[in-house]
Amino acid sequence: MQSFNSRLIAKITAADSHLCVGLDISPEKLGISNTNLEALINHTKLVIDATRDLAVAFKPNLAFFERWGSEGFRWLEETMEYLGSDAIVIGDAKRGDIGNTARQYRASLFDHFGFDAVTINPYLGRDSILPFIEDQTKGIFILCRTSNPSAGDLQDQVTKDGPLYARVAGMALDLNQNDNVGLVVGATAPDEIETIRKIAPGLPFLIPGIGAQGGDLAEAFNAGNRNGQAIINVSRAISFAGDLSRSSIRRTARDYRDKMRELNHD
Amino acid sequence: MQSFNSRLIAKITAADSHLCVGLDISPEKLGISNTNLEALINHTKLVIDATRDLAVAFKPNLAFFERWGSEGFRWLEETMEYLGSDAIVIGDAKRGDIGNTARQYRASLFDHFGFDAVTINPYLGRDSILPFIEDQTKGIFILCRTSNPSAGDLQDQVTKDGPLYARVAGMALDLNQNDNVGLVVGATAPDEIETIRKIAPGLPFLIPGIGAQGGDLAEAFNAGNRNGQAIINVSRAISFAGDLSRSSIRRTARDYRDKMRELNHD
Repeated sequence: MQSFNSRLIAKITAADSHLCVGLDISPEKLGISNTNLEALINHTKLVIDATRDLAVAFKPNLAFFERWGSEGFRWLEETMEYLGSDAIVIGDAKRGDIGNTARQYRASLFDHFGFDAVTINPYLGRDSILPFIEDQTKGIFILCRTSNPSAGDLQDQVTKDGPLYARVAGMALDLNQNDNVGLVVGATAPDEIETIRKIAPGLPFLIPGIGAQGGDLAEAFNAGNRNGQAIINVSRAISFAGDLSRSSIRRTARDYRDKMRELNHD
Repeated sequence: MQSFNSRLIAKITAADSHLCVGLDISPEKLGISNTNLEALINHTKLVIDATRDLAVAFKPNLAFFERWGSEGFRWLEETMEYLGSDAIVIGDAKRGDIGNTARQYRASLFDHFGFDAVTINPYLGRDSILPFIEDQTKGIFILCRTSNPSAGDLQDQVTKDGPLYARVAGMALDLNQNDNVGLVVGATAPDEIETIRKIAPGLPFLIPGIGAQGGDLAEAFNAGNRNGQAIINVSRAISFAGDLSRSSIRRTARDYRDKMRELNHD
């Protein structure tokens, strides 16, 4: 069976795309009433239809579905079915728990929902991560240096191995025995991306923080794609582009993909 | 309005109990087929009925519900309704994400499901935590030093402020402006509980790791209940006690409560 990382790299090459389309659909951004889940479901499908051939992966953010409880999870189930098994789908769940509980989350994310990969929070250490990487066809992206303003509160704390995020990068490299471990590194910290790339050459990076969060695309892309491959996630800037029409969304997604193609082929 | 911490402390006193009953119900532990959610739902209600007057709080672990997707979340909704508004219910979610996403999780956990408090992972720093503590009637327990074998991989790393978990304890104290912040400290590390208690006197502790995980009740209870109050979570050892009958479950829960009463009144 093909490992998750090799499947992802092959798809990047085949699609000539590094664009990950994030699915973070909220009624506030759509300008509708809170109770109309149907409109959220329809917009999700519209974003998928508009970007399916442009994206190398999709990344539903579980919070935006969980917000609506069981009805929201039904929307997520419907979304997973709509995406189908050809798409690479990364569940942005940021789970992290003790081994017994981690196995329940694995059953949820990989077996029930059918994600190809998930984001994982490393605060509980290795035994909270291992259940997610036993199956080489399923992958993880471990939070390393995130894109939010207070990321450094813990992640930048200096330990004997350098900043904490560097230790996480080293741990990820160690854990990559099945070629299915990657890292989340925020576009808002391009210098840290370079440092992390030196520690973990070859590991796929998932880079959020472009668009609404203000990270610089070229800096992040170049830092992430030296000595390895990085996919760049764009959520709100694509899903809520322009007049929210399929053509606005498609045009914006294509612009992002094409900018990355230029950077890649420079 | 009463702050979450003062409500919790008042309930500990009124019930003369430090017992938190964890709800981590799996078919494997019940010895039934995977597809029979009805049996899980019924056992959840049986555990609640058997322990309602003995517990100071209940702690459903979201992983065990998420495992079943939308049907599992319906079970969680039903469980929250069954617990009612008098019970203090802590959602063991261990969420942690950037501010915009944290607000979606807040809407899920506090508004949709109606938890009184939730567990929070601090790896993303302050801005990932703030949305959860704006409402003083809702509380959080921040993961500080957890009970699993590899907890120390990151949490014990020494920084200029001492081990990372000590920094988290200090951050929690700073964040407790609305009297609604507590800490998760594992029973398997009683020395660390003492260290954390010195940094964060008065903050409520939620202590897992007793029972199936092997932590020592007396050591953990005493370390947590000096200069503050701690509630001790027991999940599997109560929910799957003896022959799984209501009387076995009740007897085991009462034993735990009574042991803690003795320790408390020593």
